[in-house]
Amino acid sequence: MARVTILGAGDMGTALATPLAHNGHDVRLWGTKRDGAIVAALRDGLEHPRLKVNLPAGVHVFPANEAATALRDAEVVVVAVTSDAVRLVLRELAPLLSEPRAVITVAKGFAGGEDGAAIQLLPDTIAEFTDAPVIAVGGPSKANEVARGLPTAVAFGSDDRRALALAVDAFRTPHYRIAPTDDVVGLEIAAAMKNAYAIALGVCDGLERQTGLPHHNLRAALFPQAVSEMGLLAEAMGGRAETAHGLAGAGDLLVTITSGRNRLLGERIGSGEHPRDAASALAGGGTTIEGFAAAGFGHRLYRQAVAKGVLEEASLPLLDGLWRVLHHDADPARVLWDAVDSDAAATPVTAAT
Amino acid sequence: MARVTILGAGDMGTALATPLAHNGHDVRLWGTKRDGAIVAALRDGLEHPRLKVNLPAGVHVFPANEAATALRDAEVVVVAVTSDAVRLVLRELAPLLSEPRAVITVAKGFAGGEDGAAIQLLPDTIAEFTDAPVIAVGGPSKANEVARGLPTAVAFGSDDRRALALAVDAFRTPHYRIAPTDDVVGLEIAAAMKNAYAIALGVCDGLERQTGLPHHNLRAALFPQAVSEMGLLAEAMGGRAETAHGLAGAGDLLVTITSGRNRLLGERIGSGEHPRDAASALAGGGTTIEGFAAAGFGHRLYRQAVAKGVLEEASLPLLDGLWRVLHHDADPARVLWDAVDSDAAATPVTAAT
Repeated sequence: MARVTILGAGDMGTALATPLAHNGHDVRLWGTKRDGAIVAALRDGLEHPRLKVNLPAGVHVFPANEAATALRDAEVVVVAVTSDAVRLVLRELAPLLSEPRAVITVAKGFAGGEDGAAIQLLPDTIAEFTDAPVIAVGGPSKANEVARGLPTAVAFGSDDRRALALAVDAFRTPHYRIAPTDDVVGLEIAAAMKNAYAIALGVCDGLERQTGLPHHNLRAALFPQAVSEMGLLAEAMGGRAETAHGLAGAGDLLVTITSGRNRLLGERIGSGEHPRDAASALAGGGTTIEGFAAAGFGHRLYRQAVAKGVLEEASLPLLDGLWRVLHHDADPARVLWDAVDSDAAATPVTAAT
Repeated sequence: MARVTILGAGDMGTALATPLAHNGHDVRLWGTKRDGAIVAALRDGLEHPRLKVNLPAGVHVFPANEAATALRDAEVVVVAVTSDAVRLVLRELAPLLSEPRAVITVAKGFAGGEDGAAIQLLPDTIAEFTDAPVIAVGGPSKANEVARGLPTAVAFGSDDRRALALAVDAFRTPHYRIAPTDDVVGLEIAAAMKNAYAIALGVCDGLERQTGLPHHNLRAALFPQAVSEMGLLAEAMGGRAETAHGLAGAGDLLVTITSGRNRLLGERIGSGEHPRDAASALAGGGTTIEGFAAAGFGHRLYRQAVAKGVLEEASLPLLDGLWRVLHHDADPARVLWDAVDSDAAATPVTAAT
């Protein structure tokens, strides 16, 4: 049994209390200031307002101003705030961290870059605030299913084998399986970029809405292109392409194109709405759409990799096209279809007469 | 301009008249005896009864008893009958074939095996009846979208580069793109097996119907497992795994789990129906469910490959589990979940303390 503190009482933070409580840990769930209503409901023994599930018995819930109590002697810390809040929250809480044996982050994506600084993967951001080994999480994981103990398989990634084993051991249950990997970079690239690619595939749903005609063939042709591009970007960053073909890439992309705000942003763009308007309409409560931000960061990484000669020019046509749709008014239908063309051209064997 | 004869006036045969007519070919569409009502409707200038589209202008339609006229001097022949009818139809028509420069097959799957003979890929079956080079087709390609000229990207495969180039040239339009490949085996394995794996993923939809709880995480975890297994089986047969990760594998699997009888068979099994009852209820008009047959053939190939030492024991747990569900009353939910477990175990890095 370990003392585990989850930072963030949103959907995923709360959901992870289920496998942790199943394993008999001392679980503390801390809510940010924005989680006030959730914390109040949970403390009253009510359902989580969005997940519509009750917390497992024994989980302790702490409001924003009780972070010190929530974190006291925590051996495992779970970062489950939104990716754009990670730096803000950790800056505040870092002094309260005792020396956890592992920090697990379900927040995913990139940080930095706004001020011209280097783009960071979130585990590196977290490492600025703690010496504890950081474990990244990827894979198809709808919170409402995790919370209900429905079968879920994810990947945990770290280059610290000891901490990775500890984390896997803490979370793994008969209904929550974990594939350990040392490819943190591949895992994080896939986990972040699948949100961007889900926008692109969502555009096809919008084209259907706009034209009254299904665009399933186009959507399906974009899927392997998206996975392939995630793999190439992962490799360019020092990770492995195969990670993009697994749970964290192809698997997570599949759930992400089924529902959620990233897909919806794509659908609105495909329906003819201007990307800026669609993004701000969906960005309720000041949160950004994760895929929108990831497309920008990912595109910068892509351009940097091309400049360094690590990636070939035009090797990520779908990401490049998506970025031009989001920022330069490119025509979405044309851009997506051109990305498929490149896929065809990239096939190893060329017909000759 | 070429003389092109399409054998089979079903959905896909008829749909392919669209790119061919766009390219100005002399297109003849021949219907089998089972296509009688379709041929009658098309000859009366009516819509195709299932596709709900009119034929492009200039396409000639021939009933079953006018095969000789339909095939006279055909330079390109398209085999678009159901996979279990290929042998029957070609046995009858072989004497009528002049010497086509290419035979394209959109029928996919396996043949033979019932009598203990070796399992064949369909291009090999076709090659028994003609000396013409055979081109295999894979990729996400809903016929109703192809017929309407909506964007569709497919893969054409042959080891005859000349015939492949001719076929690509005949079919490629601004809305129908073609990636040529010499990996016929990989293409055919993926094209056939995606129907089997679509049953497995469809089971998750059935579990949702039965329990009232979504099983999106499980379904998404099975997707990369299915693609990976198609790649392993392709390799075992002498093809390339990367083909399974492209349009013909991952791409086609994505549309196949969206709709169609294979997915539906899975859904009924997941809902608690006995596989045999579900399969026979769906097998209207005497046609078998393609994925049901493919699971059987694929499983035999798998066992043969293990016996030969080309594949490791337990390397295709999802296919093996599906086969046990279909033929040996295995519990579908348990089988699928166990297949995900193996995926986790197969991940290269194992956690150690």
